[in-house]
Amino acid sequence: MNLEIIKGGVTSPKGFKSSGVSTGLRKENAKDLALIFSDKICTSCGVYTQNKVKGAPILVTKEHLKDHKAQAVIINSGNANTCTGDKGIENAEKMCSSSGEILDLKGSDVLVASTGVIGVQLDIDTINKTIPTLVESLSKKGYIDSTRAIMTTDTVPKTAALKLQLGGKTVTIGAMTKGSGMIHPNMATMLCFITTDANISSELLYKALKESVKISYNRISVDRDTSTNDMALIMANGLAENPIIEDENEDYKLFCEALKTMNVHLAKMMAKDGEGATKLVECKVINASNEKDAETLGKSVISSNLVKTAMFGCDANWGRILDAMGYAGPDFNINKLQLSVESKSGSIEVFKNGNPIEFSEELAAKILSENEVLILANMNSGSYTVSCWGCDLTYDYVKINGSYRS
Amino acid sequence: MNLEIIKGGVTSPKGFKSSGVSTGLRKENAKDLALIFSDKICTSCGVYTQNKVKGAPILVTKEHLKDHKAQAVIINSGNANTCTGDKGIENAEKMCSSSGEILDLKGSDVLVASTGVIGVQLDIDTINKTIPTLVESLSKKGYIDSTRAIMTTDTVPKTAALKLQLGGKTVTIGAMTKGSGMIHPNMATMLCFITTDANISSELLYKALKESVKISYNRISVDRDTSTNDMALIMANGLAENPIIEDENEDYKLFCEALKTMNVHLAKMMAKDGEGATKLVECKVINASNEKDAETLGKSVISSNLVKTAMFGCDANWGRILDAMGYAGPDFNINKLQLSVESKSGSIEVFKNGNPIEFSEELAAKILSENEVLILANMNSGSYTVSCWGCDLTYDYVKINGSYRS
Repeated sequence: MNLEIIKGGVTSPKGFKSSGVSTGLRKENAKDLALIFSDKICTSCGVYTQNKVKGAPILVTKEHLKDHKAQAVIINSGNANTCTGDKGIENAEKMCSSSGEILDLKGSDVLVASTGVIGVQLDIDTINKTIPTLVESLSKKGYIDSTRAIMTTDTVPKTAALKLQLGGKTVTIGAMTKGSGMIHPNMATMLCFITTDANISSELLYKALKESVKISYNRISVDRDTSTNDMALIMANGLAENPIIEDENEDYKLFCEALKTMNVHLAKMMAKDGEGATKLVECKVINASNEKDAETLGKSVISSNLVKTAMFGCDANWGRILDAMGYAGPDFNINKLQLSVESKSGSIEVFKNGNPIEFSEELAAKILSENEVLILANMNSGSYTVSCWGCDLTYDYVKINGSYRS
Repeated sequence: MNLEIIKGGVTSPKGFKSSGVSTGLRKENAKDLALIFSDKICTSCGVYTQNKVKGAPILVTKEHLKDHKAQAVIINSGNANTCTGDKGIENAEKMCSSSGEILDLKGSDVLVASTGVIGVQLDIDTINKTIPTLVESLSKKGYIDSTRAIMTTDTVPKTAALKLQLGGKTVTIGAMTKGSGMIHPNMATMLCFITTDANISSELLYKALKESVKISYNRISVDRDTSTNDMALIMANGLAENPIIEDENEDYKLFCEALKTMNVHLAKMMAKDGEGATKLVECKVINASNEKDAETLGKSVISSNLVKTAMFGCDANWGRILDAMGYAGPDFNINKLQLSVESKSGSIEVFKNGNPIEFSEELAAKILSENEVLILANMNSGSYTVSCWGCDLTYDYVKINGSYRS
């Protein structure tokens, strides 16, 4: 099946509206409050950060999803509502109940997410005062505003949609994500909201979400810092009227495939837009003896500060790649390893049979100056392939994070 | 006992000489070849990198230390002799045999270490040609030259000595270390050469070394990148003539205490001189329920890019500290945690009882502008204390590592 990413976002599936507005709390009145609403109650589930320190919205959303049902999500940026004690929980609940009231929903059918600085209480009064405008603004076109409203240091809005055929019906999946710093996923990371009009059981919706997150958001890193607030939520309202997916049949497989395509697309967008980044760096580990080791090796490479600065400097200092593989944990046979570096400007092999290979430094610099670079590690030890995505480490990363709160 | 660091280095103990010269291979003819020699054969042992990719010198030195005996160490900087296949092993052996020949030692009584770029064959002919000068230059004052010769991106030579009384005899310990980038120890990291005239069994010498490395070099990080070449070696020639230490008696305890004092001193010097660093950042975890968790939490804090950039920006963005503790792994009770930030300019408490505490941003900035900053995490859960040391992440780190090979 040809699964193509199309223009659109969380409002592309039938029955979804969205909006994004400014509370006036952020610099230059940037949009900072977003809402997604479904005409019909949705089957819904999420995956969450594995950080032991969890933001209040994580705790509240988990609680509200105990019945696998939701009809709206409210999200603020600029403040993570984390390390804020009981008051933080109370404020997260208020965001749900206030918006639920106007939308005529139970507060527990509204989910909540936050992103921004840790350790500061929300200005809940200002948020509450803005919620009526937020609800009034709900529309099909509103996905553009909501995608903007969840951005923090992101420089590019991250939104996508795709369509597939299930049981003779057109099913649509839409999503928006944010994330640029504090990105090193463990289960879920960053914020990701996926909507679909697919008709699917909550068990299989969760399974499909988990599997797609594992190979997309869980395989990117910007700075090795796993956030306290990250979550990926999915809401399925069934309005496509496809035969309900209750078994792992062909339709389920197609749906999973579509979800993976979408999430890998957005994960790569996130890595490429990493704080201060000038390029997307993919590490593809092929012919590995198992998937877990391949993932650990690939993630170690794209997370290494020394690899990342070399990528920034367009320096084919491949010893740092081997170093990062070496401290990753898994055993591997260095004499079987073949290492090469590629981009649309060409390809160079740098290491084989336990020995360095001479290469043209000029070509190497040209390859690395592209904005998408591939590090290919052929383990020659099995049949597993894993891709991980990261970015370079630049002066701008230091600049952005040396003065985040100000 | 008053254990004070004094001026000196690897030649401070009786019977040791050292030298450092230039092979002409490095920029501006920087010194790049060092030698330590003992008049008498030494009891010797080492701890090594846990990286699966190991430099040739690691393999050769391990082999030569199988009999726990050594009389000299030769070290080059500028080239790690790693990922260099059989030729690399051959070259590391040649460094030992060539210097052994002139010193009238078996090649297997000479140890070897290398640091620098990975994946390039050594220019062994040039090194061989320089070895006679290196041997001729051996002297008591030569510790200054050898300490310089092992530096790469280090900006400060790291050398120290101390004296203690054992069984009525004065015992001296001297050491030199190097390390500024690719620093995230696992067992040993960086290069560290310790000499002593103590009379001690090889078993207890190893035990003392391992324990002191665990709480010093294994608790620093510059960039989370564990190197392929790092080792800490100790050589004890017994010339102090103290009663031989063969049991874990009072003398052994004193010797351990002295070794720990020395290694913590040098470890802190290394963290403070981390590539591009402007300050030393200590994370002290106190009243923890066990040592291992305290170490994991502390190391996660000093390794976090987001904490490190905040330190550079003098921004008391303490949420990042909690975030780094949260993803470190160990469970802890956030409601018991008290967090404060200190330096010689003052102290501020930022988090207690699960809630943020208001503080003066002005004072915070002043505290963080000092060149030694302490992050104090009181777990209020037990009696264990662990300190870990790192540095800030700066523009200069990116600059240095974006162009290392050139």
